[in-house]
Amino acid sequence: MEKGEDKHEEEQDQVVNPWEVTAKDGGKIDYDKLIDKFGCQRLEEPLVDRVQRLTGRPPHVFLRRGVFFAHRDFDEILNAYEKGKKFYLYTGRGPSSEALHLGHLVPFMFTKYLQDAFKVPLVIQLTDDEKCMWKNLSVEECQRLARENAKDIIACGFDITKTFIFSDFDYVGGNRSFYKNMVRIAKCVTYNKVVGIFGFSGEDHIGKVGFPPIQAAPSFPSSFPHLFSGKDDLRCLIPCAIDQDPYFRMTRDVAPRLGYHKPSLIESSFFPALQGETGKMSASDPNSAIYVTDSAKVIKNKINKYAFSGGQDSVEKHRELGANLEVDIPVKYLSFFLEDDAELEHIKTEYGAGRMLTGEVKKRLADVLTEVVDRHRAARAAVTEEMVDAFMAVRPLPNMFD
Amino acid sequence: MEKGEDKHEEEQDQVVNPWEVTAKDGGKIDYDKLIDKFGCQRLEEPLVDRVQRLTGRPPHVFLRRGVFFAHRDFDEILNAYEKGKKFYLYTGRGPSSEALHLGHLVPFMFTKYLQDAFKVPLVIQLTDDEKCMWKNLSVEECQRLARENAKDIIACGFDITKTFIFSDFDYVGGNRSFYKNMVRIAKCVTYNKVVGIFGFSGEDHIGKVGFPPIQAAPSFPSSFPHLFSGKDDLRCLIPCAIDQDPYFRMTRDVAPRLGYHKPSLIESSFFPALQGETGKMSASDPNSAIYVTDSAKVIKNKINKYAFSGGQDSVEKHRELGANLEVDIPVKYLSFFLEDDAELEHIKTEYGAGRMLTGEVKKRLADVLTEVVDRHRAARAAVTEEMVDAFMAVRPLPNMFD
Repeated sequence: MEKGEDKHEEEQDQVVNPWEVTAKDGGKIDYDKLIDKFGCQRLEEPLVDRVQRLTGRPPHVFLRRGVFFAHRDFDEILNAYEKGKKFYLYTGRGPSSEALHLGHLVPFMFTKYLQDAFKVPLVIQLTDDEKCMWKNLSVEECQRLARENAKDIIACGFDITKTFIFSDFDYVGGNRSFYKNMVRIAKCVTYNKVVGIFGFSGEDHIGKVGFPPIQAAPSFPSSFPHLFSGKDDLRCLIPCAIDQDPYFRMTRDVAPRLGYHKPSLIESSFFPALQGETGKMSASDPNSAIYVTDSAKVIKNKINKYAFSGGQDSVEKHRELGANLEVDIPVKYLSFFLEDDAELEHIKTEYGAGRMLTGEVKKRLADVLTEVVDRHRAARAAVTEEMVDAFMAVRPLPNMFD
Repeated sequence: MEKGEDKHEEEQDQVVNPWEVTAKDGGKIDYDKLIDKFGCQRLEEPLVDRVQRLTGRPPHVFLRRGVFFAHRDFDEILNAYEKGKKFYLYTGRGPSSEALHLGHLVPFMFTKYLQDAFKVPLVIQLTDDEKCMWKNLSVEECQRLARENAKDIIACGFDITKTFIFSDFDYVGGNRSFYKNMVRIAKCVTYNKVVGIFGFSGEDHIGKVGFPPIQAAPSFPSSFPHLFSGKDDLRCLIPCAIDQDPYFRMTRDVAPRLGYHKPSLIESSFFPALQGETGKMSASDPNSAIYVTDSAKVIKNKINKYAFSGGQDSVEKHRELGANLEVDIPVKYLSFFLEDDAELEHIKTEYGAGRMLTGEVKKRLADVLTEVVDRHRAARAAVTEEMVDAFMAVRPLPNMFD
């Protein structure tokens, strides 16, 4: 059994699962503790260097700055890749809202980098069925949201010759191979086990209890016969936020019993709320996040008004003590989205020493995020319904490994 | 909440659920108690008379002799039918074995009668996924068995212009509407509820826990858009053995929340084992049943050797006391398959009075069953692979209500 599948601990200092991310006592998420609890591995520098060597590209900002900080058997993917064995990427999104925020883009931006760097196919699952079962949303509304979200995902720049996007309502009910794998997986997982992994209760509905195999199935190549027919030996790499780890712990437990490789994982920390690093952003508070639909003015206002600052209360005190970078959200956000390593270092040094003021850092952040959001908005506007249909068409991808 | 959904009673005198039928202390199933416990209605003579009046046909042997003895809202189906509103029939089978026995034919023979008498469409679900999850069988083996069983079902004489047969592995994974209804149903049923209805334990796998919506979904017309598009108001009548009642209690509870009619049920008692009326036949003991593949000689031998007799130990005693018809299997079997009411009455009278001997009754039964089995075998031999494909094709049935 994979480590990490123990029942919920009595003393719940922090809670991280696909539906809840809460730090201890309103503090920061302790990622070291999470790695220990889940039993995954820390993504250390030698592995990052190896990615650079194998792909001939500088590692992505998210990789070299530790946004993707944990993994499971990512080294095995690299070992196989080194021997000429390719793999496929699998990521996804639960489409519960129309507008994505920057945190939602993180796994997709990183997945695009992986696709470009390793030149491998990618499947993207939109779990409209999950959202229909967890939220009070109709089937039709979830399908509509899945399609809207697909446009944002396509806007991240994925290669249509290597990418298949699917919604569960379309594909689970439209593909016999996928449903068969769901059944094969479900046979291997007891109710007690999903309670241990996900913390379901007896009053949860059986749609929830039965859902994990649906998120597990894309980890196995035979779920996509139009792509991977005859390639049952193909490995799968899943880039995701670490709150999705429980699904794939379960999947990795089941894989050998079905004759498949365990999927490998590369896992990110959470993109923090403007108000501070105490968990994931709250979907119910629009002021906790920058949305890809926000205007330059809204972005500037949100940052100025809500971004938690590590700077001191007065200019005098700030000049004397400098900013506390550990809790400063503008610096944290810049570390995600300011690509220039030298400039980021410069800001951290100057701001930390008190020579740069919070207002200046926030101003720079507003410019950086506005550029990211403007770029995304322009790319999304160019996504047509026909492009969505094309990405979501069940079709072979003949050159997906080239 | 439908009556009958209480948790398992402490004193389990008899157990009847889709996977276990056990009478109290090896005795007979108490069907009166079952009706009370499940909360269904007894199928009384006025309702049988009404079927005759509405269809202009004599009621089927299984109806006039009380084989189908219980129902849920069958009168509502007849009320609507009287006003010119048709319905559709839904029945099914879990394909866990190659050869069917006579008990397996009972619901299908009765369903054919209902289809002919009411002139209504019929959907037949082959739960190959259920058998894959409950038995130690592969997906492929269950699909093969489903197809073999479909041949036996087709051999019962169903009208191809009014009948759609589907296997779950084919149709659930091949039809978006069906999967959507599964999700809608699953959302309405808690884990505690299925534990109460079906008695699952925490060590059961989540495939079992998640299965009930799959058997529920065919009760709603929107699961079959190629047949019932725009007919969400269509009522459904389910002929089945009473051990399937738990599935449809659950379905009836959910139906109004999804805007559908509750499905109606017409429910049969169990066809007893040769050894006596203590439950359903055991699949593991071939001598407990007559199979549709048995030869005349095998049928004769099984009846002579295993059919539990209510006759007395010696001819003298038998002439004096007569047979105990309550426990006599040959008479029970004749009441299912000997169509001539007068002859059946004659046998019961003469045998009960001791004027007819067990050997004579068994001889008559062997002839009757051989005829049934020979007729079935000939009909099955005429079923081609093309006919199976045709019955299982997802297609409109334009004249299904004519």
